[in-house]
Amino acid sequence: MRIGVLTSGGDCPGLNAVIRSVVHRAVVDHSDEVIGFHDGWKGLLEADYRKLDLDAVSGILARGGTILGSSRVQPAHLRDGVERARGHVQDLGLDAIIPIGGEGTLKAARLLSDAGLPIVGVPKTIDNDITATDVTFGFDTAVGVATDALDRLKTTAESHQRVLIVEVMGRHTGWIALHSGMAAGAHAILVPERPFDVAELARVVGERFEAGKKFAIVVVSEGAKPRPGTMDFTSGATDVYGHERFSGVANQLSVELEERLGKEARPVILGHVQRGGTPTAYDRVLATRFGWHAVEAVHGGRFGMMTALRGTDIVLVPLAEAVEELKTVPANRYIEAECVL
Amino acid sequence: MRIGVLTSGGDCPGLNAVIRSVVHRAVVDHSDEVIGFHDGWKGLLEADYRKLDLDAVSGILARGGTILGSSRVQPAHLRDGVERARGHVQDLGLDAIIPIGGEGTLKAARLLSDAGLPIVGVPKTIDNDITATDVTFGFDTAVGVATDALDRLKTTAESHQRVLIVEVMGRHTGWIALHSGMAAGAHAILVPERPFDVAELARVVGERFEAGKKFAIVVVSEGAKPRPGTMDFTSGATDVYGHERFSGVANQLSVELEERLGKEARPVILGHVQRGGTPTAYDRVLATRFGWHAVEAVHGGRFGMMTALRGTDIVLVPLAEAVEELKTVPANRYIEAECVL
Amino acid sequence: MRIGVLTSGGDCPGLNAVIRSVVHRAVVDHSDEVIGFHDGWKGLLEADYRKLDLDAVSGILARGGTILGSSRVQPAHLRDGVERARGHVQDLGLDAIIPIGGEGTLKAARLLSDAGLPIVGVPKTIDNDITATDVTFGFDTAVGVATDALDRLKTTAESHQRVLIVEVMGRHTGWIALHSGMAAGAHAILVPERPFDVAELARVVGERFEAGKKFAIVVVSEGAKPRPGTMDFTSGATDVYGHERFSGVANQLSVELEERLGKEARPVILGHVQRGGTPTAYDRVLATRFGWHAVEAVHGGRFGMMTALRGTDIVLVPLAEAVEELKTVPANRYIEAECVL
Amino acid sequence: MRIGVLTSGGDCPGLNAVIRSVVHRAVVDHSDEVIGFHDGWKGLLEADYRKLDLDAVSGILARGGTILGSSRVQPAHLRDGVERARGHVQDLGLDAIIPIGGEGTLKAARLLSDAGLPIVGVPKTIDNDITATDVTFGFDTAVGVATDALDRLKTTAESHQRVLIVEVMGRHTGWIALHSGMAAGAHAILVPERPFDVAELARVVGERFEAGKKFAIVVVSEGAKPRPGTMDFTSGATDVYGHERFSGVANQLSVELEERLGKEARPVILGHVQRGGTPTAYDRVLATRFGWHAVEAVHGGRFGMMTALRGTDIVLVPLAEAVEELKTVPANRYIEAECVL
Repeated sequence: MRIGVLTSGGDCPGLNAVIRSVVHRAVVDHSDEVIGFHDGWKGLLEADYRKLDLDAVSGILARGGTILGSSRVQPAHLRDGVERARGHVQDLGLDAIIPIGGEGTLKAARLLSDAGLPIVGVPKTIDNDITATDVTFGFDTAVGVATDALDRLKTTAESHQRVLIVEVMGRHTGWIALHSGMAAGAHAILVPERPFDVAELARVVGERFEAGKKFAIVVVSEGAKPRPGTMDFTSGATDVYGHERFSGVANQLSVELEERLGKEARPVILGHVQRGGTPTAYDRVLATRFGWHAVEAVHGGRFGMMTALRGTDIVLVPLAEAVEELKTVPANRYIEAECVL
Repeated sequence: MRIGVLTSGGDCPGLNAVIRSVVHRAVVDHSDEVIGFHDGWKGLLEADYRKLDLDAVSGILARGGTILGSSRVQPAHLRDGVERARGHVQDLGLDAIIPIGGEGTLKAARLLSDAGLPIVGVPKTIDNDITATDVTFGFDTAVGVATDALDRLKTTAESHQRVLIVEVMGRHTGWIALHSGMAAGAHAILVPERPFDVAELARVVGERFEAGKKFAIVVVSEGAKPRPGTMDFTSGATDVYGHERFSGVANQLSVELEERLGKEARPVILGHVQRGGTPTAYDRVLATRFGWHAVEAVHGGRFGMMTALRGTDIVLVPLAEAVEELKTVPANRYIEAECVL
Repeated sequence: MRIGVLTSGGDCPGLNAVIRSVVHRAVVDHSDEVIGFHDGWKGLLEADYRKLDLDAVSGILARGGTILGSSRVQPAHLRDGVERARGHVQDLGLDAIIPIGGEGTLKAARLLSDAGLPIVGVPKTIDNDITATDVTFGFDTAVGVATDALDRLKTTAESHQRVLIVEVMGRHTGWIALHSGMAAGAHAILVPERPFDVAELARVVGERFEAGKKFAIVVVSEGAKPRPGTMDFTSGATDVYGHERFSGVANQLSVELEERLGKEARPVILGHVQRGGTPTAYDRVLATRFGWHAVEAVHGGRFGMMTALRGTDIVLVPLAEAVEELKTVPANRYIEAECVL
Repeated sequence: MRIGVLTSGGDCPGLNAVIRSVVHRAVVDHSDEVIGFHDGWKGLLEADYRKLDLDAVSGILARGGTILGSSRVQPAHLRDGVERARGHVQDLGLDAIIPIGGEGTLKAARLLSDAGLPIVGVPKTIDNDITATDVTFGFDTAVGVATDALDRLKTTAESHQRVLIVEVMGRHTGWIALHSGMAAGAHAILVPERPFDVAELARVVGERFEAGKKFAIVVVSEGAKPRPGTMDFTSGATDVYGHERFSGVANQLSVELEERLGKEARPVILGHVQRGGTPTAYDRVLATRFGWHAVEAVHGGRFGMMTALRGTDIVLVPLAEAVEELKTVPANRYIEAECVL
């Protein structure tokens, strides 16, 4: 068989582990040929690719980023995107395409699959917001990086009697905030799913200081917003690509809290460091398993499906289901964390 | 309510996170009183304990070990163990006991539960070998430590054209070997579940060198053994406590491989470093959730049960089921890893 | 003897290691008594302190922050600051004071020393800008944290064809930028000592992309500024304490570079995470040696001095020298780094 | 100019950083040509090499091991070793050779230099035992790895009331034991320079338990030995290369201590993990500076010299001096550590 693989969308630790796994399983065990498209769907649309043999994926398992490059280009961006993709699949003699990507990528995958192309998707997002799978690779690494930072910040907050407002990734869902906040013992966690009441936040933090504690750590998702009317708040502006630019909430909250509490409050924005670098062992294992099972799905003719983790098993779910709705943090998880406002 | 908590058996990153979580949930949300028994069941049998309030568990979330101490003492070691435990539970006015421990501890928990004591167990083992739960806390940390070591060892093996035989924990099951070996891209993985053929191992490693590769990494569980008749092999002697002492397999294998291959082969025994120190974010979240749900089980009167992870949910399972049989690595996981001999 | 110790100024990994070392050397070897003042000079001025015995410093060697707390209060802030300090030294029967702190703290130390108080200083700054010592503890940890972040960011920059502008600490000197930039292989390093020419920066980065490279990493000290007239630039505003607030340069540079290059450029501000958390082994050893030698200086009556590292030796230098001028990055170090603009 | 570079002897984090730095300085700034010999002196003796341009050293700064490979072959191993080296230097038109290695490598470098070949050495050893330089790269990484392990082991020792005997690298000198032991707060440190008295060790550890402490950590260099007559002791056997094999002392000590104290004592042998993997920022900076200055020395015709760190400066010292005697841990450093027996 001849299989094409591509990585699309934002960066995510574990992408290289999937690529390596696809090549190992396909080439060694099935004597397949694998090619990698450059820069996501762009590579497919422009037939820009290279051959991936064992040497090409040697040493990449623990490396962050993606050796294939990525972009935000989608087939739907072109009027003839689907037809161009189909043409290249035929010209290159491809039996299957394995796109690795997040929600947008999987929607594009479904579009092409519905148009009859042989697709098996692999879900990817550090945000962990894809409903059809228990976990996505990249999430554990992002949580780990955020938790390490929070561990460090706690000592400095404590020594200087401060409130630290730490902004982590998560535009639409609060998974990274929830897990890193629980792991580091944050005193308040703010997530996009629950608009927060800044007065309530000030009360919680204030009571902590009144009880003699010397510092407080607030973890906030970049997409968290105050309840309308509780605080002056400017959403991020749009950037040159028309995407909403986030990363304003920690800055605005620190000014607001400093005023309400009369305590020093400082914002820390963790930023891109959460999505780069060596993946954790957890993410490498999950990514490797996804790659292996994607190749098996190809050989089983299970097109239009996506790999997913359910408990300890890797299963296949229809792409259609996969992108139905965002997996948000459910109410019982707020309660467990005890400090989600 | 008045709740007693104890930690028993081998060390495991995340124990303190469970203790902290139990205290937070019980004291803050239910106005319970919590006491901690010292050194596992020993503390219960001797009524040796201390009060655990919020201050007592401040700052312990990320700390390895257990602030309560541990031991391998079991109620069944004493003729009147069960009666002494019952007596102290009554004298201390305890409404529940939450023992945190591995297979042995959970068996003791079941014994006491069958005798009518109000018990909710929390499973703990870095080996990940308890059937009733998808994962146990401590496992992710152990795999992470082993993977970090393997990442380091790869570069030194490569520069010096060596075979490295890296012995990781796992007396009866190969979970740590499997996951760290997959995460680090080991070239062979040996697990207790599958007695290995040393000739086959030598062949796999030899072919790698013939193909021009300069090194090989073999990950081996401390409890892995050769197929009878394939290699002279001495199992570990028993130690002063009558336990079998492991940690001989890497040494013996390196001698054997050096002889068969004419290549330098060196053993590395990771040892106790795998079970100490700061837990990963993953383990802290899981441990925290277990503690929280154990308190809920107590308040729901769900005695004789144990917390467990199923998918993304924490559920309760009967202690009876929990200790039925060891969770071994299933065949399909060997196949995925592609290098389990 | 009776010795008072205090930590003053900004947070710095290794403070606790110094405190522990002072107590160990003084109590165990000299049978001294040690007290610790709370929140820096404030504790001395208000006679707010606690006794420090071996138990009080147990387990703090690897912990970030300072168990004594810190503040920015200085004796010179009070009209009768020196006299109050003298009074408390007499009332408490102190034979010596060991203040641990940066430039401001050491100036205060000199003031009190000139007024006849028995002082031995220990220098502390993550910025490494104290002339009289080769290195200060905390610097190695800060550089390590920044380098880890840069390692992670490189993979994400590479996958997405971006310029990343990473702002590290250093208001007046570029040591952290220089060392982390060299360690991570940054493509340009901007330091406060050399106002940069933004056109030159754009040229360097642009040439890199023209040569086919897919990303660039620029490390910039928070205190770096453009050469007058080369770029619109707003220095940070002053905060509520009258200190200049930094952390604007990366934001402004990323806008400017995006415009000049037509490439996506993103700011990352590492912030407080550089000054918190577990110190590196290097910093723990240096801090421990400083504490040990400070006690020896007290017993040798070497007041008015400060510990310093020279080569591999710990020596004593007059406080007067210690604070003469800031240690800036010398020209030959720029040349070695090859990418300081 | 045409420069040859090679790495010889045991593995050491930072080798790749030196190679990269040599190439960057030579190629970019001096328009030199650089070739890299494979597997140390072997490559020079057999004219086995490859060209090193900027692409060849891209991405290696943070990578452990050496891209050139290494071996323990020395020119003196061949009767005509010096003449063969001279012949290849002439045939390849080399203006200089930069060997990077430890004591043995530098002795060979001196031999060739005395024979008239144009050599500039770069010292390398994780053991930090070269007299002519304050520090060698690799040492900081080794100490860091050992300290991380000790941090982890402390919690597990504490929870289980154990003595842990942790064996670190250092055949002839105790630098790694001294620094990691100080950094982690070990309770006893045993080094090769001072044969230890096992009765004294048992006394120190025993008193700790009598004082109510629950554990003890002993750090021991692999080359440490008991004072004659104080303990049955078997030195390591020689391996197939005629080198003495170390790594027996922790095992023997744990048996001896268990017997004398009646406490559980466990050996942990850290092994090769100390010399592999990503170098610390400190080592990357030092290695980069060494490479830069080696190229400058070549262009200044300063042959027969070696780069060295003195304080904060990189200087050149004669190879003759460099290998005169091993840098052992001086007495005053034992006293500072307070627990070297």
